[in-house]
Amino acid sequence: MRGVVMRTPGDVRVEERDNPKIVEPTDAIIRLTATCICGSDLWPYRGVEPADHQVMGHEYVGVVEEIGEQVTTLKPGDFVVGSFVISDNTCEICQAGFQSKCVHAEFVAQIGTQAEKARIPHADGTLVATPGQPDDDLIPALLAASDVLGTGWFAADAAQAGPGKTVAVVGDGAVGLMAILAARQLGADRIIAMSRHPERQQLARYYGATDIIEERGDEGVAKIKELTGGLGAHSVIEAVGTQESFMQAVGATRGGGHLGYVGVNHEVKIPGIELFFAGIHTLGGPAPVRRYLPDLIQRIWNREIDPGKVFDLTLPLDQAAEGYRAMHERRATKVLLSI
Amino acid sequence: MRGVVMRTPGDVRVEERDNPKIVEPTDAIIRLTATCICGSDLWPYRGVEPADHQVMGHEYVGVVEEIGEQVTTLKPGDFVVGSFVISDNTCEICQAGFQSKCVHAEFVAQIGTQAEKARIPHADGTLVATPGQPDDDLIPALLAASDVLGTGWFAADAAQAGPGKTVAVVGDGAVGLMAILAARQLGADRIIAMSRHPERQQLARYYGATDIIEERGDEGVAKIKELTGGLGAHSVIEAVGTQESFMQAVGATRGGGHLGYVGVNHEVKIPGIELFFAGIHTLGGPAPVRRYLPDLIQRIWNREIDPGKVFDLTLPLDQAAEGYRAMHERRATKVLLSI
Repeated sequence: MRGVVMRTPGDVRVEERDNPKIVEPTDAIIRLTATCICGSDLWPYRGVEPADHQVMGHEYVGVVEEIGEQVTTLKPGDFVVGSFVISDNTCEICQAGFQSKCVHAEFVAQIGTQAEKARIPHADGTLVATPGQPDDDLIPALLAASDVLGTGWFAADAAQAGPGKTVAVVGDGAVGLMAILAARQLGADRIIAMSRHPERQQLARYYGATDIIEERGDEGVAKIKELTGGLGAHSVIEAVGTQESFMQAVGATRGGGHLGYVGVNHEVKIPGIELFFAGIHTLGGPAPVRRYLPDLIQRIWNREIDPGKVFDLTLPLDQAAEGYRAMHERRATKVLLSI
Repeated sequence: MRGVVMRTPGDVRVEERDNPKIVEPTDAIIRLTATCICGSDLWPYRGVEPADHQVMGHEYVGVVEEIGEQVTTLKPGDFVVGSFVISDNTCEICQAGFQSKCVHAEFVAQIGTQAEKARIPHADGTLVATPGQPDDDLIPALLAASDVLGTGWFAADAAQAGPGKTVAVVGDGAVGLMAILAARQLGADRIIAMSRHPERQQLARYYGATDIIEERGDEGVAKIKELTGGLGAHSVIEAVGTQESFMQAVGATRGGGHLGYVGVNHEVKIPGIELFFAGIHTLGGPAPVRRYLPDLIQRIWNREIDPGKVFDLTLPLDQAAEGYRAMHERRATKVLLSI
């Protein structure tokens, strides 16, 4: 089968890889329908992380081709959406809703779903079947559920976005936009998007932002305070992951408020004393997408939400290299690869 | 009146200070019955923070002597317990239970309650009257409610200690011991105290610890994992405030678990990536003691809890200098000053 391999930073190829086979009785083999390129895939692309002939991709939707003998909730032919972290969905941690910290957790990035097929371990606990074969126009939305939507939703949930709340979203990338969508769906009164890109501001408003703030850092915090009677937002979502954006998010959260964060880079060092005196709740980490998948799939199936708009470029798998370039050069926010 | 003044680091005097007077109509003047020395008072004592003829003390119980004309819930003669942070208890932040982040928040340390009297601003929102005049033997317990008990209780609450939970407590000082008491009262199944001092281990068991771990750092984390089926504790309380103890607390918390922390020093820098991949809830800050005071006072009044045992040395106010020395030299855990 064909699959993306990053030979060295920036050198993305579509190469012939071995067809996956059932190894464990809880595995499923899926034939991918679509996959995509994540902002985190740019880390090795840009050399921020090492890259040495590694497989790529962790977002995916597809059709079950074969199942191991212990798989009970899926059958060949089912269309499935999977989380970017493998989970058994039965351990104590999964049962508490933190499937990304499952005792059997494994990052799908190690499997590499920018490919024609993939072996998914713990298939029952990782994949969720859609109610039927989806219409083509639903594919991007279902694919988004696999990571960016699930991650944005977790961020909004972690920030306790909901009725009566003012939510501030730091970051206007795909995850930030999905967090806006989630905050809106969760019933937040007011959603402040921090964005300085006109086309993303537009998308932010489409997904439910009621206010836009262009300022960053301390000025951005001051602006949030100004809009919230000096108190700060009840719920803040951090969807950038730099030192500045993280501290901006801390500063924007009111005392006793909730900060949900879904990515930080290796350079971030949080001054303990600042976090302490902020007096806020925080929850972050790789999103337990599997917890939200059944609900998100249903909302997409019912056409209540349209997260697919975050993909602004679609290319065939063979042109993966161009997809990486487009994201690297910021010509695209998020690239869908059709297979 | 007499009051403690720290002239320079380590130079503690009991000097003549001006008698406090009502300034705002929401003030109360209280005659202190007892006060105490906090671990944080040792920071300027040891020169970790500057000290220049400053008043000291933020924990206090006493009798109302005079009230401003807008004070409605207290009257002269009432015995009161106060929080170590001034709060109006009516603003949006207070109503959400985060009185230590009140829009009128002010640290009582600036007022200095190691003295015969004190002016307490926002008296209705800061002080709580006991049901009547307390018996003498209840004074230490009521005094503990003012900070160490309230802080330990907040830490246990922030860590969501409760039925079905395994709680780990990092730190066996007064606050850590009070967090054990709180976790027990909140119904935790199992309480693991991290302590290597025999006499504090004994007190930890008295207050409800079911297990003691002497190891620290990575070894301490490994031991917690060993006791929790490899998962980590549901609820972890950080009551030390150093880099090592904070990261030990992060490591001891299971994915999706809750970390409550109630003090960090200026050196603590939390690696964002470690906190992220831990996938845990955190809540910390100066404790909103006022939220808990009515309940804590009632539990003490009913003699359901006995937090007063954390005081292992009682001295008259005039011997404050000896009290500081005893704590500095670790001859005492916590010193009560009677007035």
